[in-house]
Amino acid sequence: MKTICKGISNHSQKGEVLDMHFSSIKFNGKEIENNLFKLNNDNQKLFEISFNEDTLNDPIKDIRDAYLKLHLLSHKFVLPNTINLEGLFTILPNIVWTNQGPIALEEIDARLNESKFHGNNLYIRSIDKFPCITDYVIPKKVRIADSSRVRLGAYLGEGTTIMHEGFVNFNAGTLGKAMIEGRISSGVVVGNNSDLGGGSSTMGTLSGGNDVKISIGENCLLGANSGIGISLGDNCTVEAGLYITAGTKVTINENNNTKLVKASNLSGLSNLLFYRDSTNGMVVAKDNIKVSELNEALHKND
Amino acid sequence: MKTICKGISNHSQKGEVLDMHFSSIKFNGKEIENNLFKLNNDNQKLFEISFNEDTLNDPIKDIRDAYLKLHLLSHKFVLPNTINLEGLFTILPNIVWTNQGPIALEEIDARLNESKFHGNNLYIRSIDKFPCITDYVIPKKVRIADSSRVRLGAYLGEGTTIMHEGFVNFNAGTLGKAMIEGRISSGVVVGNNSDLGGGSSTMGTLSGGNDVKISIGENCLLGANSGIGISLGDNCTVEAGLYITAGTKVTINENNNTKLVKASNLSGLSNLLFYRDSTNGMVVAKDNIKVSELNEALHKND
Amino acid sequence: MKTICKGISNHSQKGEVLDMHFSSIKFNGKEIENNLFKLNNDNQKLFEISFNEDTLNDPIKDIRDAYLKLHLLSHKFVLPNTINLEGLFTILPNIVWTNQGPIALEEIDARLNESKFHGNNLYIRSIDKFPCITDYVIPKKVRIADSSRVRLGAYLGEGTTIMHEGFVNFNAGTLGKAMIEGRISSGVVVGNNSDLGGGSSTMGTLSGGNDVKISIGENCLLGANSGIGISLGDNCTVEAGLYITAGTKVTINENNNTKLVKASNLSGLSNLLFYRDSTNGMVVAKDNIKVSELNEALHKND
Repeated sequence: MKTICKGISNHSQKGEVLDMHFSSIKFNGKEIENNLFKLNNDNQKLFEISFNEDTLNDPIKDIRDAYLKLHLLSHKFVLPNTINLEGLFTILPNIVWTNQGPIALEEIDARLNESKFHGNNLYIRSIDKFPCITDYVIPKKVRIADSSRVRLGAYLGEGTTIMHEGFVNFNAGTLGKAMIEGRISSGVVVGNNSDLGGGSSTMGTLSGGNDVKISIGENCLLGANSGIGISLGDNCTVEAGLYITAGTKVTINENNNTKLVKASNLSGLSNLLFYRDSTNGMVVAKDNIKVSELNEALHKND
Repeated sequence: MKTICKGISNHSQKGEVLDMHFSSIKFNGKEIENNLFKLNNDNQKLFEISFNEDTLNDPIKDIRDAYLKLHLLSHKFVLPNTINLEGLFTILPNIVWTNQGPIALEEIDARLNESKFHGNNLYIRSIDKFPCITDYVIPKKVRIADSSRVRLGAYLGEGTTIMHEGFVNFNAGTLGKAMIEGRISSGVVVGNNSDLGGGSSTMGTLSGGNDVKISIGENCLLGANSGIGISLGDNCTVEAGLYITAGTKVTINENNNTKLVKASNLSGLSNLLFYRDSTNGMVVAKDNIKVSELNEALHKND
Repeated sequence: MKTICKGISNHSQKGEVLDMHFSSIKFNGKEIENNLFKLNNDNQKLFEISFNEDTLNDPIKDIRDAYLKLHLLSHKFVLPNTINLEGLFTILPNIVWTNQGPIALEEIDARLNESKFHGNNLYIRSIDKFPCITDYVIPKKVRIADSSRVRLGAYLGEGTTIMHEGFVNFNAGTLGKAMIEGRISSGVVVGNNSDLGGGSSTMGTLSGGNDVKISIGENCLLGANSGIGISLGDNCTVEAGLYITAGTKVTINENNNTKLVKASNLSGLSNLLFYRDSTNGMVVAKDNIKVSELNEALHKND
């Protein structure tokens, strides 16, 4: 496999690469194809690069690798957690994302000050290593209520709705239709027909969480303001407001005896309902009887 | 009653309606009046439509009905839950909301790609069936810290402040002054002088919740990160971090005996304080002694 | 000490001040220096003002004082809670912040309506007394994933990352590097090397909280969806999903006996781990063994 991509890059006044937009990508028989146009801006360059299996398996060496891999994820050519993203944070520069395109940090003070006098209304949407997905890739049959909350590198299945309180990091996303009003941390993948309630949390591995990447199966419901530090299999529900960490001691029923287990021992199991008994504060897992169903009208995002 | 409205619609290249802006509306003796101007864009059309009581009571038949009803709500001509919104999700197309106006989904890939080469800095704020309220209606004496979090169709009382973490869906809102740092789901109405703390949640009926529309009375406080799946009457407080679902078993005191009731049985009652006893995990409701008061300086939004 | 500042102000059609951008400030030997340019817009004016120690200690008298003090905080010339901000909410007008600059509330209806016909795509980012920090001040070695969530007047230490779910109010911030995925209320200061997990809450004094300003020391971790109404010293951890209010009764171990104390009695202490025992619902504080460490790659924000 050897594959050619074409696109356009933006550069700082010093010539450093700020970002790369991939207009066309061919990959494993699928392809994205948009026209290239003639350039008339000194700070832009056309590029044509090739990559192969090794590129995907190797750590990220430069900004081209980084933007390529983020595009491949968001175009759904590759699934989250299947390509090597080592080095991503180190390689990606911190960029000022503005209504006038990406700007280098060292140039922004002068640009912003000038803008005040010249009335060209520069404004800054974000100062970050990652841009928004919708600045590069528009996923089909998806709704994204606030594009500032989905990073390039997110993988969004058809029929997914990301509400205003939803968030999807890079190398993370949904495999099918899903209602996302909670936060999908980097590395977390959500199965078809699952629902992350408003403000719900999935513990990540980048910051403050632990080392195990978690996932959510199909037909799951994380209640509003709930959260998980373990994986869920299929048909699981976590009660609104309950946070299950890996270390939470959970009461289960086994052969008619109650028994305490660490939540991490239940990680990935299916058909569980997690709740906190409001009469005694015990966190309990039991068979999930009422499985969540999505409202079809909210996910036919044509 | 028969009423005339005028305004302007945007169309896709194929001629499909993308959105409708109502410049003037007369309704029940109140009126909104803004000038119409001559058009000079092939993708825009002037419209003049009439509607009557039946229109309000009938299901939504087309995009005109949809935008009319969303405008009526946000101009506060009608209260939430008083007009028929059946069919809204089916009728509204999924639109790309950009800094260059609404764009049809099928046109966006080419537009975005061209923009990269021609330096016109198209960017996408949202891909959704609903636009932001402030793209069409500017409610008076209101603050909205992040306009991307209030949908057209929200009803915002004078003196309302929607903070950055606040959110208001269509057909939902506040009846008077209110501090909203939490999420008001579709169908939920909040009474005068109430305060939804940061990250607090009101369970909706569209997705993941149950079937009963909930409401919040006057002088209520939802603590930060709390949530409710039941209605609150007046003068109620929910402790920070506590989520009351309809099924939560709540301990109350009746004639000096404690008693367990389902939270749904307390729905809509006034003067209650809900908290979880931090010595034994029991969720308790008792008489609310310290009623919440808003800070006046934060709600004089002239 | 007497200090000169220069900059540019925007005015409404009536001549009222909408905002002030400080291009140059000299203060205590440090200085910000950007060029002034010739004006060509009737609604803009150059200003040159001086201030001294008294200005900092006195209540805010006018918009100049207000913008001066917010700039001083965001340029990190002064620490939060060290200058007098009395009168800030009363003095600051409610402004419509748009992609065409600040607009007076009374002018916005006509401007928005005209924009629909003339295709100049006015849109409103916010209606608020406070603008975003990045419209005036770009803090160095900082990432801000969504600029709409950090107000002018925020104080952001080098190495701070504000994620999409993070929020920082005016007169609040971080003293060193920090991962902020939660909400820093006005008056709250976070020490070096601390981590506020996704959706975590710090109780403020402006609205719905109590009267005591809280702070967070160094090397602390607020778990996702947790919250505090008390201060934390150094090396403290609050379990994901747990909200500690001032009145929470906390079980501690003293000389091998358990004892109940109000959380406010633990305010500001170091080396504590707060969690809710998931077998009995008791909120417990004990010695914190595993202290949080930030992931270096996420905070080298060059």
